[in-house]
Amino acid sequence: MNNTFSTKILSQIRVILSHTSHPGNIGSTARAMKNMGLSSLYLVNPKHFPDPHASALAGSAADILEKAHICQTLDEALEGMHHIVGVSARRRELTVPIKLPRELAPELLQYASHNENVALLFGTEMSGLTSEEIRRCNHIISIAANPEYPSLNLSQAVQVITYELRSHCDINLQHLNENHPLAAYEDIQRFYTHLEETLIDLDFLKTDNPKKLMIRLHRLFNRAKLERNEIDILRGILRAAQSFRRPPRPLAKDLSEE
Amino acid sequence: MNNTFSTKILSQIRVILSHTSHPGNIGSTARAMKNMGLSSLYLVNPKHFPDPHASALAGSAADILEKAHICQTLDEALEGMHHIVGVSARRRELTVPIKLPRELAPELLQYASHNENVALLFGTEMSGLTSEEIRRCNHIISIAANPEYPSLNLSQAVQVITYELRSHCDINLQHLNENHPLAAYEDIQRFYTHLEETLIDLDFLKTDNPKKLMIRLHRLFNRAKLERNEIDILRGILRAAQSFRRPPRPLAKDLSEE
Repeated sequence: MNNTFSTKILSQIRVILSHTSHPGNIGSTARAMKNMGLSSLYLVNPKHFPDPHASALAGSAADILEKAHICQTLDEALEGMHHIVGVSARRRELTVPIKLPRELAPELLQYASHNENVALLFGTEMSGLTSEEIRRCNHIISIAANPEYPSLNLSQAVQVITYELRSHCDINLQHLNENHPLAAYEDIQRFYTHLEETLIDLDFLKTDNPKKLMIRLHRLFNRAKLERNEIDILRGILRAAQSFRRPPRPLAKDLSEE
Repeated sequence: MNNTFSTKILSQIRVILSHTSHPGNIGSTARAMKNMGLSSLYLVNPKHFPDPHASALAGSAADILEKAHICQTLDEALEGMHHIVGVSARRRELTVPIKLPRELAPELLQYASHNENVALLFGTEMSGLTSEEIRRCNHIISIAANPEYPSLNLSQAVQVITYELRSHCDINLQHLNENHPLAAYEDIQRFYTHLEETLIDLDFLKTDNPKKLMIRLHRLFNRAKLERNEIDILRGILRAAQSFRRPPRPLAKDLSEE
């Protein structure tokens, strides 16, 4: 990705659901939006809303449902918008060229970052956007789905589009990953030496072709990208194996008697 | 994207849902999978399955539910797998590094294209994958969601991950777009000349600074990237305006009398 945008931009992007039949889809949409950092929801003539099914499926996105704007007409929901993005799975007559969400997302974020208002418009569950609705759009995107079954559930389509927008924002998973310092070269070499010694002690490494086996073991551990802690654990195991295998060490005075 | 993969690979990737509570999520998962071209679904100890809610939400993906494998243990569902990808939204102790779906997807498709078996593993709705389940994974991905509400609905997570995989495959929207040949340079220039003539005829274009207005109009039409048909329509409008404005043309014999 060339450009990354601040996740703050996402809250400026409006989601409009037109003539939604199932209130559960409104709830799932609210959850999908909040999961991806969007918050502005407009509902044009929803069949049932508010509704307990919507609330149940919204999960912790009840705030988005509460703030949702209910409009009688699409024109009301579009007032003040500059970029109106229709989401459609169907072939359309006489429209702007249909793009992939991944193609258009950076452009939409660019607009939003320049305070141009962006609305994502989703049609009814059964048949999607009408031709009248599509005519109001200056962008159309289509999720490139399986041609044998291209029609996503409404809230799944919202999830995909909002995920795509978020994916171009400045995100990282640093908070999910632990910090495990890697072992440095010299620690790894000392481990390999220790490993080879131990395998000789255990009579596992024969003198015929010891190199080849060691090369295979180096390959394995190199691939694993050993961490510092792991070197400590592995060398502890080697020490345990050595002390177990070796005959008890003679005491110092026994040695002197030899 | 550097590499694009055939969508055929997707059907080789297994989705495993572990201990799913809500059968509706199994149905929505089946639909999400089929929408994205996946078909192999394994269910580990689902709470209710088969179930009418699953079937209702599967839509036209009933075939995936019918073929779904029901397993008693995760180990059963993982037999024969080479790459086990845990999907998790939480910080985890002692795991492989957590990656973004977009980072890992091309790698997974590469594996699948070399006949290495890939499984996507999703945990239960309430708490996700257990530590025991995570220990079986050699890859972990996390959807970079809103830190204030990072937990996606189960089937929405399946939708996002499978969408991400499909997005790296060879997809295009050619079948959705109509073919509208663009107007060539000379046609556009002839239109501009005609437009300027008409505006003079209409007394709209004054002689003080006609260039500036024409430049603005060129700018508008250049931005619109005119199509051949549109040139015909626009010139038709210009002709109509000219004939409306102009005094009726004198007949040929009137001219000869002047």
